[in-house]
Amino acid sequence: MASKLTKSIAIIAGAGPGTGASIARRFAQTYPVVLLARRASSLDPLVEQITQAGGTAIGIPADVTQPGAMESTMQQLERQYGRDHFTVAAAVFNVASKFSRSAFLDSGEEFLASLEATARGASNFSKAVLPFLLRAVEEGPQGQLPPTLVFTGATASLKGGSGLGSFAMSKFAVRALAQSLAREFGPKGVHVAHAIIDGIIATEQTKEYLADKPDAKIDPDWIAEAYWFLHSQPRSSFTHELDLRPYCETW
Amino acid sequence: MASKLTKSIAIIAGAGPGTGASIARRFAQTYPVVLLARRASSLDPLVEQITQAGGTAIGIPADVTQPGAMESTMQQLERQYGRDHFTVAAAVFNVASKFSRSAFLDSGEEFLASLEATARGASNFSKAVLPFLLRAVEEGPQGQLPPTLVFTGATASLKGGSGLGSFAMSKFAVRALAQSLAREFGPKGVHVAHAIIDGIIATEQTKEYLADKPDAKIDPDWIAEAYWFLHSQPRSSFTHELDLRPYCETW
Amino acid sequence: MASKLTKSIAIIAGAGPGTGASIARRFAQTYPVVLLARRASSLDPLVEQITQAGGTAIGIPADVTQPGAMESTMQQLERQYGRDHFTVAAAVFNVASKFSRSAFLDSGEEFLASLEATARGASNFSKAVLPFLLRAVEEGPQGQLPPTLVFTGATASLKGGSGLGSFAMSKFAVRALAQSLAREFGPKGVHVAHAIIDGIIATEQTKEYLADKPDAKIDPDWIAEAYWFLHSQPRSSFTHELDLRPYCETW
Amino acid sequence: MASKLTKSIAIIAGAGPGTGASIARRFAQTYPVVLLARRASSLDPLVEQITQAGGTAIGIPADVTQPGAMESTMQQLERQYGRDHFTVAAAVFNVASKFSRSAFLDSGEEFLASLEATARGASNFSKAVLPFLLRAVEEGPQGQLPPTLVFTGATASLKGGSGLGSFAMSKFAVRALAQSLAREFGPKGVHVAHAIIDGIIATEQTKEYLADKPDAKIDPDWIAEAYWFLHSQPRSSFTHELDLRPYCETW
Repeated sequence: MASKLTKSIAIIAGAGPGTGASIARRFAQTYPVVLLARRASSLDPLVEQITQAGGTAIGIPADVTQPGAMESTMQQLERQYGRDHFTVAAAVFNVASKFSRSAFLDSGEEFLASLEATARGASNFSKAVLPFLLRAVEEGPQGQLPPTLVFTGATASLKGGSGLGSFAMSKFAVRALAQSLAREFGPKGVHVAHAIIDGIIATEQTKEYLADKPDAKIDPDWIAEAYWFLHSQPRSSFTHELDLRPYCETW
Repeated sequence: MASKLTKSIAIIAGAGPGTGASIARRFAQTYPVVLLARRASSLDPLVEQITQAGGTAIGIPADVTQPGAMESTMQQLERQYGRDHFTVAAAVFNVASKFSRSAFLDSGEEFLASLEATARGASNFSKAVLPFLLRAVEEGPQGQLPPTLVFTGATASLKGGSGLGSFAMSKFAVRALAQSLAREFGPKGVHVAHAIIDGIIATEQTKEYLADKPDAKIDPDWIAEAYWFLHSQPRSSFTHELDLRPYCETW
Repeated sequence: MASKLTKSIAIIAGAGPGTGASIARRFAQTYPVVLLARRASSLDPLVEQITQAGGTAIGIPADVTQPGAMESTMQQLERQYGRDHFTVAAAVFNVASKFSRSAFLDSGEEFLASLEATARGASNFSKAVLPFLLRAVEEGPQGQLPPTLVFTGATASLKGGSGLGSFAMSKFAVRALAQSLAREFGPKGVHVAHAIIDGIIATEQTKEYLADKPDAKIDPDWIAEAYWFLHSQPRSSFTHELDLRPYCETW
Repeated sequence: MASKLTKSIAIIAGAGPGTGASIARRFAQTYPVVLLARRASSLDPLVEQITQAGGTAIGIPADVTQPGAMESTMQQLERQYGRDHFTVAAAVFNVASKFSRSAFLDSGEEFLASLEATARGASNFSKAVLPFLLRAVEEGPQGQLPPTLVFTGATASLKGGSGLGSFAMSKFAVRALAQSLAREFGPKGVHVAHAIIDGIIATEQTKEYLADKPDAKIDPDWIAEAYWFLHSQPRSSFTHELDLRPYCETW
């Protein structure tokens, strides 16, 4: 049964500047948001920005690829909201996989580091949030949106590339996880989705790139809108996968 | 340059009861809608319903699989709005392919009829509306949403099935067209998208099916919301393909 | 029961110069081959070449996209071998879809001509040969290879392209048919396969193209070997789909 | 330049009973084979069997998922054949990923163990053999077959499943690696391929399963034939991916 005291939150891993910040701001229009990133310095300005806009945000520095990081995060939330007094309405795994293009035979230990960190992060995060997403199915308020878990993918989620083995392995693996969780938790009422971001995202770091061609980079606020759209879908009509690319992208 | 006199319309082929009607009602919240279906009898109640809700709708009986049907439709619209005085903001090809499961060797002439009708319909419709979608790119009002062409697909868009050759050929072919048009007209500013409807749609005809399991059929209003979401995307962030299925669907 | 008098043949539609001829020569090492092409002039030299090499070949001019062409072909074979006295060990649909790249809005009636001819051809051919492939399952000699139906696909079987809608629709549709027939007739013992030819084929017509780069075009004899390999597989281990491309092809 | 003293070998990781043994026997018809498996006890009978059949085989117990295992394997081969005196004609990564179906939230540390071991194994193996495959391109004898690297995949290479996240992540990641290596090393003349084994393989362990239905399990000798077929292809006509399934498999 829904309790009036139950708090529904959104939690975003990879809430640094760019896509993560856009997603955080979008979900903060409806939910208190919990923001995870490796460095507190990425979180503080975002928490402040959301707070000033009238939202509620908590930043928790956490490296989700490390064992224990998600457990201690969830414990901190239980202290914050009271054990059994919160559910997760939406969880987004937006942690970047390390992108590098390098000749396979020149690569060293780092070749698998990206895969292992990404896979571990995605798995740790999913294990930590799914019990709270399931609790939202059981105890959520009447009329709530189905609890949602979204993974951020990339072009390389669908296609390997010369020198891109490490990145593609990461992204293929996350897609495999997203599909497997969708097939396991969908029937339990949790909406699991995967977004293929097929293009350069417009961020501070990419602002020189294609600077003279308007709209040639993906607006991170529209990645956030797409994730919100996914969250808004009722359980009769779940989208598992969608792609996003600029109008002028070659594909 | 945008002219104050230019009218932006939405046009839906396959605007019969069910999905087509939901799409029509959704787009009628913003645009005058032009509804195409083979029989006037499917159109009249929908036109009336939209009109009573404060929208504007025109029903044109047209079999888009027939040569000339779309030309005469567009000419009728030019008489209605004035030549060069309207653009198409959104066009939806929602004409059903005939679904039948039958042993291949027992099938007759009808085996290819579905493919040919669907392919011809999708092609005729696209040829007729694309000049007006391109005109919307050129002449549309400031701040308009990118003109959008959406095709309705199905499970069989991705996967053939025993006894389903005719239907799958239709659906694969439409997907090929959608991809080809997206790659040709995307760079010109037209958003071409394809939706994979993977499940039974909740309509009058399917109401007995899974009657005891709530939300086990796709809500057509949420197909319409998905199409509207596609239309709402700015050109920096086009989704070409998304799927839609009930939470409990096996896939 | 296998009859000593039953003849096992191979039949190739699209047996013109290039890939079709290579396939014909390969299968003629084991079976009498029946060669279909629109023009007798493409068939005569090939029949002679196979005969001189010690094989048996019959050329039948036939446009498989035309109604009745396959029926009259099969009747001719019944006259030749005696009704109920032959089975089809292998059938290959290698009829080229018309390839053209053209702006969608500039295309005319021919836009759908390719799709309709290809789909009709593939369907007519399959309907005509499948009863004889099934008969081979029932009546074939001990130890024969499973009867096999192979369709030639292309890059555009998987991916639409700007200006390629007509060709891609054809190729997607054939792939849908191949998948559907595999799922229907595989369990009955017929091996249905689809080959994605992803690159330029080395033929008389393409000899100027990449002339200075050895092996940059697909050797049609190796398409033939791939088809023979498919035919050689026992029913425990059917390959439904494989791709073929030059080592230096970008994909 | 090819040296008469250069030895061309085949090397198979995962050469235990079943598929690995079949592949080893098939390639031993042409090359000395180097067999890797975790336990010497799996290797000894196979080495003896190949030797008695007139082939040459070396078994090297090695856990390719462990750092250093492949380096010491390759050093052992250099001692055996002489530094710079051997090339790898064919390398097969057939190491099984641990298959388990378990509820995601009940899984522990082992959830990622499969992925990490498989990814590490596939990456270690590829890094160790590719220099010798490239050397085969440079120094191989006239008329040799293009050096080939084949990865064994599964149904779960293409599709996640409820409770199968761990296995699917492994298999998706290997496919990503295979695609990336194909795109990097194909243009250098190395044939990189990926086989999707979609069904139960007929082995000692599976002999009770479907025991009453002949040919319902994949014959491992025909997996081996498929790998040999891949190896036999000239560089004008490389197959990157093929599937293999019993005629009666649902897919």
